[in-house]
Amino acid sequence: MTTFESIAPTLERQAIELPSWAFGNSGTRFKVFGTPGTPRTAEEKIADAARVHEYTGLAPSVALHIPWDEVDDFGALRSYAEGLGVALGTVNSNTFQDDAYKFGSLAHSDAAVRRKAIDHHLRCLDIMRETGSRDLKIWLADGTNYPGQDSLRQRQDHLAESLAEIYAGLDPEQRLVLEYKFFEPAFYHTDVPDWGTSYAQVSALGDQALTCLDTGHHAPGTNIEFIVMQLLRLGKLGSFDFNSRFYADDDLIVGAADPFQLFRILFEVVDGGGLDVGSPVQFMLDQCHNVEDKIPGQIRSVLNVQEMTARALLVDRPALDAARASHDVLGANAVLMDAFYTDVRPALADWRESRGLPRDPMAAYLASGTPERLAAERVGGKQLSWT
Amino acid sequence: MTTFESIAPTLERQAIELPSWAFGNSGTRFKVFGTPGTPRTAEEKIADAARVHEYTGLAPSVALHIPWDEVDDFGALRSYAEGLGVALGTVNSNTFQDDAYKFGSLAHSDAAVRRKAIDHHLRCLDIMRETGSRDLKIWLADGTNYPGQDSLRQRQDHLAESLAEIYAGLDPEQRLVLEYKFFEPAFYHTDVPDWGTSYAQVSALGDQALTCLDTGHHAPGTNIEFIVMQLLRLGKLGSFDFNSRFYADDDLIVGAADPFQLFRILFEVVDGGGLDVGSPVQFMLDQCHNVEDKIPGQIRSVLNVQEMTARALLVDRPALDAARASHDVLGANAVLMDAFYTDVRPALADWRESRGLPRDPMAAYLASGTPERLAAERVGGKQLSWT
Amino acid sequence: MTTFESIAPTLERQAIELPSWAFGNSGTRFKVFGTPGTPRTAEEKIADAARVHEYTGLAPSVALHIPWDEVDDFGALRSYAEGLGVALGTVNSNTFQDDAYKFGSLAHSDAAVRRKAIDHHLRCLDIMRETGSRDLKIWLADGTNYPGQDSLRQRQDHLAESLAEIYAGLDPEQRLVLEYKFFEPAFYHTDVPDWGTSYAQVSALGDQALTCLDTGHHAPGTNIEFIVMQLLRLGKLGSFDFNSRFYADDDLIVGAADPFQLFRILFEVVDGGGLDVGSPVQFMLDQCHNVEDKIPGQIRSVLNVQEMTARALLVDRPALDAARASHDVLGANAVLMDAFYTDVRPALADWRESRGLPRDPMAAYLASGTPERLAAERVGGKQLSWT
Amino acid sequence: MTTFESIAPTLERQAIELPSWAFGNSGTRFKVFGTPGTPRTAEEKIADAARVHEYTGLAPSVALHIPWDEVDDFGALRSYAEGLGVALGTVNSNTFQDDAYKFGSLAHSDAAVRRKAIDHHLRCLDIMRETGSRDLKIWLADGTNYPGQDSLRQRQDHLAESLAEIYAGLDPEQRLVLEYKFFEPAFYHTDVPDWGTSYAQVSALGDQALTCLDTGHHAPGTNIEFIVMQLLRLGKLGSFDFNSRFYADDDLIVGAADPFQLFRILFEVVDGGGLDVGSPVQFMLDQCHNVEDKIPGQIRSVLNVQEMTARALLVDRPALDAARASHDVLGANAVLMDAFYTDVRPALADWRESRGLPRDPMAAYLASGTPERLAAERVGGKQLSWT
Repeated sequence: MTTFESIAPTLERQAIELPSWAFGNSGTRFKVFGTPGTPRTAEEKIADAARVHEYTGLAPSVALHIPWDEVDDFGALRSYAEGLGVALGTVNSNTFQDDAYKFGSLAHSDAAVRRKAIDHHLRCLDIMRETGSRDLKIWLADGTNYPGQDSLRQRQDHLAESLAEIYAGLDPEQRLVLEYKFFEPAFYHTDVPDWGTSYAQVSALGDQALTCLDTGHHAPGTNIEFIVMQLLRLGKLGSFDFNSRFYADDDLIVGAADPFQLFRILFEVVDGGGLDVGSPVQFMLDQCHNVEDKIPGQIRSVLNVQEMTARALLVDRPALDAARASHDVLGANAVLMDAFYTDVRPALADWRESRGLPRDPMAAYLASGTPERLAAERVGGKQLSWT
Repeated sequence: MTTFESIAPTLERQAIELPSWAFGNSGTRFKVFGTPGTPRTAEEKIADAARVHEYTGLAPSVALHIPWDEVDDFGALRSYAEGLGVALGTVNSNTFQDDAYKFGSLAHSDAAVRRKAIDHHLRCLDIMRETGSRDLKIWLADGTNYPGQDSLRQRQDHLAESLAEIYAGLDPEQRLVLEYKFFEPAFYHTDVPDWGTSYAQVSALGDQALTCLDTGHHAPGTNIEFIVMQLLRLGKLGSFDFNSRFYADDDLIVGAADPFQLFRILFEVVDGGGLDVGSPVQFMLDQCHNVEDKIPGQIRSVLNVQEMTARALLVDRPALDAARASHDVLGANAVLMDAFYTDVRPALADWRESRGLPRDPMAAYLASGTPERLAAERVGGKQLSWT
Repeated sequence: MTTFESIAPTLERQAIELPSWAFGNSGTRFKVFGTPGTPRTAEEKIADAARVHEYTGLAPSVALHIPWDEVDDFGALRSYAEGLGVALGTVNSNTFQDDAYKFGSLAHSDAAVRRKAIDHHLRCLDIMRETGSRDLKIWLADGTNYPGQDSLRQRQDHLAESLAEIYAGLDPEQRLVLEYKFFEPAFYHTDVPDWGTSYAQVSALGDQALTCLDTGHHAPGTNIEFIVMQLLRLGKLGSFDFNSRFYADDDLIVGAADPFQLFRILFEVVDGGGLDVGSPVQFMLDQCHNVEDKIPGQIRSVLNVQEMTARALLVDRPALDAARASHDVLGANAVLMDAFYTDVRPALADWRESRGLPRDPMAAYLASGTPERLAAERVGGKQLSWT
Repeated sequence: MTTFESIAPTLERQAIELPSWAFGNSGTRFKVFGTPGTPRTAEEKIADAARVHEYTGLAPSVALHIPWDEVDDFGALRSYAEGLGVALGTVNSNTFQDDAYKFGSLAHSDAAVRRKAIDHHLRCLDIMRETGSRDLKIWLADGTNYPGQDSLRQRQDHLAESLAEIYAGLDPEQRLVLEYKFFEPAFYHTDVPDWGTSYAQVSALGDQALTCLDTGHHAPGTNIEFIVMQLLRLGKLGSFDFNSRFYADDDLIVGAADPFQLFRILFEVVDGGGLDVGSPVQFMLDQCHNVEDKIPGQIRSVLNVQEMTARALLVDRPALDAARASHDVLGANAVLMDAFYTDVRPALADWRESRGLPRDPMAAYLASGTPERLAAERVGGKQLSWT
């Protein structure tokens, strides 16, 4: 039996980065609904992220999205965040909302558009120098809607060239992480649709380029934990974007749609050293909250990751190894399921309390009066959303 | 061999209704791109629809979406349309963009919201009396995002009651068609997710209630032509929303993603009497054009349906029946494929010319100067889109 | 809080029927691997099923598959089973392994083949009179491999006629349950591919005809609990075939691939009255064990259903209703998740012990010496499998 | 406009390798149906393959599967084949039907099993020296059925070691092609599930190791032509296994399920140089015929590939490039669709005739009396199938 005590040090160093955009409004192509208390400024988003960390101790940094989080003085924003106890983390580029990018950005057939997109990324690197961020995360909306619309091959070559130019701009301690996505917003082909493509592209760049695995970006039925294992094995798993989904890229709370899948993913993370000291893997959320409250949604998310990490760490490895060695299929599976079905919540509450955190972060936040206060204070101005 | 002459009478009566919203801008949750010449008023949308009919002879009516096409005087709109040679067709209700509908409409747990949604539909029936429309089409965005969020069963019962009240408001010649959709915008459950649910609901209402089959609204791998067959067999296929998709509800041009699937669907339509005189089946497009030109997109769409209908009609039925009777699997399949691979375009061009239509409607439209003229004229105002 | 005591009466009456074929060898189209101790006769299969019941108290009946379980004297088989403490349950017809059925059975275009298939079912009804079984379960392999191969419509009509003739042969207390399956073994179309088709067919037959829902027989992403809700609402859920899968119809242990899905399904069962006294819903397993041990596989399966039923029953309904009423999305979801994450295993062990059953049925069985004894005894003869 | 004359030289050198196993019986896990005239020996399978080449001129070689095609003297088999006008081609290893491989082969946790599997591959290399074959194709059934059953990572490392040992045994002119498959026969994880894994493994081996792309082995919705493009770009596309499917790995005739997909795949092959002189890409069928006749099934298959290749070659490249350059989405798509909808069959019949081949190979074969003769002659013995 693995004890809770033995896994506590690993839990102690667990950190999950929050996306600033989780605190703004979001929605579907059909409608974006607003909610009282939604931030109107980048500072308010960071303040909300800091609240999640205050109650959970799990979220010491906030990822930015440029230009959604564009401010005049990123150094000031960094100081503001640090004053609230959180760091600024990964910088996410955005090359899909300018009219110039209608037919792509880094993979566009027109060199002028690629130039503009590359420059945007170089600007992100500058911002990272001000914010103290390590990672530039690139998710591309590039793709086509109809067969024949553009050359798949030429776009891939253009993409390689564009990435190489961005990569050349990295400082030694900076990293480029390239996210892949099965589909959307492009309808026919996506220029980085799978881990294989991201892997081939970042391998061509060098050691500072890695892959970002977004748990919602795979074909139906894909064995995601296998990819986690493979990227860890190949030394190319740079970061996770956590979320969950029943259908497409639905951006539900991580662990909400298929808790057992999250467990299996975290088990492979543990197995592959992703939670070891010095691991290159950055854990992040990439979720939006369409109909649920935002700060509670993020609290629930980081707790889900923590609880499932605890279950994954509790797997009885000697028992597992023994069952595997004797090809005891049901026995080996039972070792895994035993950990999955263990209710880790009481032990985590005790442990949280011992660190000066609320036993039940969600209840504590809801009882704090903060939701009502934010709703009352944040009147007027324009609630932030993706657009 | 089936001759083109023998199928001409069926082609002659083929009519495909256009959606007014195809002429406005649309996009994904990430971005809506505009295009020069996009309509600013309901009238301009109808005028564009009339242009599609002018060049193809295939699109004699336009479907409206309320409130997107809300005008002060629907009678005047009807006259305007008729003056351009087209009729106003199916009225589509919209209960997903008002803040009240955040958690549903006809299936909402709150009676007051259901009341509002029912009243909207009754208002649509009034509009239909002014526009001369036969069909009220109901597509519901109702659903939930998280397991447990609401009672699946209670919502289904509420839906049944709401539909009954709307149905009671129908005039004898009016119809209610209930569309189903596998997912989106709801992330966890949709209140009318499949044909079985629509069939169960409309069967409970009566003969004036039928199902609308949107070709893009099914789970991956679904055999859509089987559903076409089944709904025709059960007497409940009221209308088609044509479009195509590679992944989710991508709203691509009908026939663009899988031409052979469209062929199989139309073959079952033919086989089940859906193109017979007096058929209850209304053929419509439900597509949007994100990156492609809108009027050409609609021209391409109706031509795709026409060309594929011609192929489906050309299937050599005696040869097919003979091969089937002897369980000649490859022989029967070959009869189908022979029709599919027949290039019907030259014969259709001749036939079009014989009816005073351009041999090549797309080329004729593009050469007409209209695109440039519309782009030049439609400056200022606000381009219409979904929101 | 719902207490374990309050749910015990429901657990007390839970019964899960075992499939006789789970105890024989099975495999994929690539290979069937044997295991020591596999039954050679119908009696040995029933004896193994009785062992599962002996250790769990959950499996008081065994389903038969005809002709796989064909014996000379079904009355004697019944006595044998009853002597071991189990009843004979659902009779499954098999019209897919005789050469005559190459192109179908009840839906075949040839009346002679349909006659043969109908007669097989009437023979099954006779067997049911001898075995004391209530339900005739029909799963059809009927379908086609290539578009055009046969008439979808004609086959559906033939199927309706065949079913009507079988239905006419039912005794008043007998039932016909019609299973649906998304695909396989047919490659292009299946004659009963979805719940809508099964529902339409059984509705046309009468009150003694119901639908069987096999949890593995849906398109990717299908919301199965919604179908459970709908069939319960429509009064047509006759039985469950439990199993699980990651990809196709993989026949894994129920709850193994997606435990949370099983939870949601059982929550809807509870919500719709499927576990009430007098419920028409028959719970069955339909699984095969390719690489894992068979008796342990069945023990694990019924325990999974029991444990998940306990979790579903533990949902705090007043709290859920309150959260739903205030549209507290995260709160309502949290009520569900709280039950799901509750470790019910200790309470179930206590309760099991109080009923004279082993606290840990799996450990008790494995320690009993039975596996080794069966392997030693069952030497010679021909191990049973599907073929 | 691209002319047929201009594409004829490419068609002239098109060669599609046939799988010997296509001529034996095959089926699903539920049933294997036999057909009159099915081969009883490796020689009869090769003779049938030679018939396909005789009528089409497209299939000058036959792939072997070891041990399905094990003979005492492979040199004699080679002479026999050459006497019939065909060569022996790719050798396919089989490490999934021996009881030793119940839990894997090259990725098995037990070194003794890996040794056995490696030796089988080395034996295949020896056979290749006798048959004059260039390619060793490895498709692995390796995987697990339950989470936890075995270590994903360790298996991947074992696989790498096993492949390295096999690779070391290659002669300079021999190649190793590693096939990937999304799922089946394993139910939970597959050791080579995607192109990324195959690419990572073969890249680690060296230049003589490449990837085999089986068109039926992808997740639902996967853009296969993108992978074709990518592997050609990376210089790692070794061979194609052609077939088609509606659902899982259904092994239907190539082009039967989605002709437009086959067109898009072949368009990318052309675009990436896969049909150029000296191309490393080997085109093969990997299909079985469950209910359709086998020799006609293979004739239909190679004709489908040929016809679709002709369409792909007919794409008007200057027009396509022009439309792409101006971001004319519909225009570019129309260029592609124009080629797809062109009926190439008459021109191919003329061209076939000019080469001394029958205008309609299928009709010629069916009229030849051969089917009846084979059925009459091949009586007695044991019809070959997979097992």
